[in-house]
Amino acid sequence: MPNWIYPDFEPLPKRPLFLCIISNTDTGKIPGLSAAGTSPELTDYTPGADAELVETNRIITMPELPEAPGGSPTPAIVTKAALNLTGIPSLFVASGLRKKPAVPYAELGGSAGGDIRKGPAVPGARALYENGALLGKKLARLSDCVFIGESIAGGTTTAMAVLWALGYDVNVSSSFQSNPTALKQSVVEEAFSRAGISTGSLKNDPLKAIEQVGDPMMAAALGLMQGLRGCRVVLAGGTQMAAVLALGKSMNIEGDISIATTKYIVEDRTASFKEIVEAAGRSYYYSDPGLQNSKIPPVQIYAQGYVKEGVGMGGAALLAAINGFSQMQLVEETDRVLMTVELPKK
Amino acid sequence: MPNWIYPDFEPLPKRPLFLCIISNTDTGKIPGLSAAGTSPELTDYTPGADAELVETNRIITMPELPEAPGGSPTPAIVTKAALNLTGIPSLFVASGLRKKPAVPYAELGGSAGGDIRKGPAVPGARALYENGALLGKKLARLSDCVFIGESIAGGTTTAMAVLWALGYDVNVSSSFQSNPTALKQSVVEEAFSRAGISTGSLKNDPLKAIEQVGDPMMAAALGLMQGLRGCRVVLAGGTQMAAVLALGKSMNIEGDISIATTKYIVEDRTASFKEIVEAAGRSYYYSDPGLQNSKIPPVQIYAQGYVKEGVGMGGAALLAAINGFSQMQLVEETDRVLMTVELPKK
Repeated sequence: MPNWIYPDFEPLPKRPLFLCIISNTDTGKIPGLSAAGTSPELTDYTPGADAELVETNRIITMPELPEAPGGSPTPAIVTKAALNLTGIPSLFVASGLRKKPAVPYAELGGSAGGDIRKGPAVPGARALYENGALLGKKLARLSDCVFIGESIAGGTTTAMAVLWALGYDVNVSSSFQSNPTALKQSVVEEAFSRAGISTGSLKNDPLKAIEQVGDPMMAAALGLMQGLRGCRVVLAGGTQMAAVLALGKSMNIEGDISIATTKYIVEDRTASFKEIVEAAGRSYYYSDPGLQNSKIPPVQIYAQGYVKEGVGMGGAALLAAINGFSQMQLVEETDRVLMTVELPKK
Repeated sequence: MPNWIYPDFEPLPKRPLFLCIISNTDTGKIPGLSAAGTSPELTDYTPGADAELVETNRIITMPELPEAPGGSPTPAIVTKAALNLTGIPSLFVASGLRKKPAVPYAELGGSAGGDIRKGPAVPGARALYENGALLGKKLARLSDCVFIGESIAGGTTTAMAVLWALGYDVNVSSSFQSNPTALKQSVVEEAFSRAGISTGSLKNDPLKAIEQVGDPMMAAALGLMQGLRGCRVVLAGGTQMAAVLALGKSMNIEGDISIATTKYIVEDRTASFKEIVEAAGRSYYYSDPGLQNSKIPPVQIYAQGYVKEGVGMGGAALLAAINGFSQMQLVEETDRVLMTVELPKK
């Protein structure tokens, strides 16, 4: 057993597939909420740029590398490094995505999510769920173990909103080192008041929770989980994916479903990752990407709690570990990816 | 061996995948050329509607069922029937597609192909080829046998143009019973004069042939073939897919590549299907869908040479055969699909 993942992940998948759902939500543009993209305007481009980085190591449709405040680069570099090492195929899945990447991806349709304070966030949640299920059913015929990550700026606030609507009294993580919990709470309270819902009032109506206060990533993830029954499913992410586990429980989705994340999320005291996963009745895995050993300072500070998760980095790192790569190999490949990524010419 | 496919198809694929490339080309809007879509305007919607039919048995984004003149329904009904029987997963792949379907599909990007008489038809051919190769490489990790069909109205004319540019002195099939060969030839001659090319002048430059006088389907198919090396690849179609074989030969793409079509294409005396496939050094399979036994007259007339191919129907029928279904089961399921397809409310 590799010594940088916990607990052991068995059996070894034969034909693993790494999916990553890419979506936009206007909730992510509320100033101060999300750390993905250096300005609210650029957050629309972040998921597509993450896809471009992972698929080709080039940024094509965004003017710069997606960054968090503090200057840390997108966690897509860790995901890319893990997929480079293992050769595991990836497929990005657009769900309510405004700015499309210039690389191949699967399209589920839908519009970007709205600001949850102002109106129903995902009116087309059911259609996205159904398209996700349709795609999941096909992929279950081809793969025996599907990882599902996400890239959606502002997704932790909609995760908090959905968890509260389902009756979970919990906090969520942040890509900031210092979690803007109070701001998130006030956004969620405003959304609840607008939608006329209260804590736990949608615990038996997960699709309505997404429709009112969620985001398009959740609808796609829930549909994929449903369609992938019979196949092992590992959600790859922090509290956002834990919220999807909670949605799945509310919908009685059965199957071999778990979640994989980073040590940084598991150790985040401002968030309730373990509590949510346990309440949803699922098990979790985590990897320690060891990024303090990076030679690049903005990558080193991941280990101090910046960024923490995203683009399924924790799950991708786990895949590297179970395929026999060392923590140091992942760190070195992550540095190499960042040093060689091609940016648009200015 | 099933008695309605020729020759035997062995070994039986373990994890087959049925792809279908959907594209638009303005060459298909030249009046009199294509039989896909009842009017030139509607041809833009035909590929997406084919995807919707196969994925959900509903037409969502087009006002009516795609039809050929003479009233025959789209060959997608046969493909859908075969995939229903076998449970083989399908994935539609958009390449230069103007009107997107409302079901999940893979997006390779690109613009619709131009009218080959008026300017370079696919200026983005290389990017589509590269995206196709990227997707193909992933799918080769998941499937052991990938079928690749197409739905692109007007595709036989661009096939003829590309074949001539590669030096093949041949004719192509038509979805009309009576092949408008003279019109196709005059379109191709006009395109060659516009582009300054002559028969065989691009025989060592297949991407330039696509760029100048081809269509976006070809660029995607060629890229997929390249990316899928190591996996068995079966092109599913008539002379359009035979042209892709010819492009693959010109590009020295190696691997276990063959083509599957219908009896109606193999028996088409106005076209040179067998000649092209043999010159490309590949083998072909064909199935006899037996549609004369349909209870629905517009389906029966397929057997008289209307429609002939499209949406990979010949390859899909072959998959039904090798999975133990009888010709009559396929015919009955085709009739059932057509009788139950849901159309948009007027």
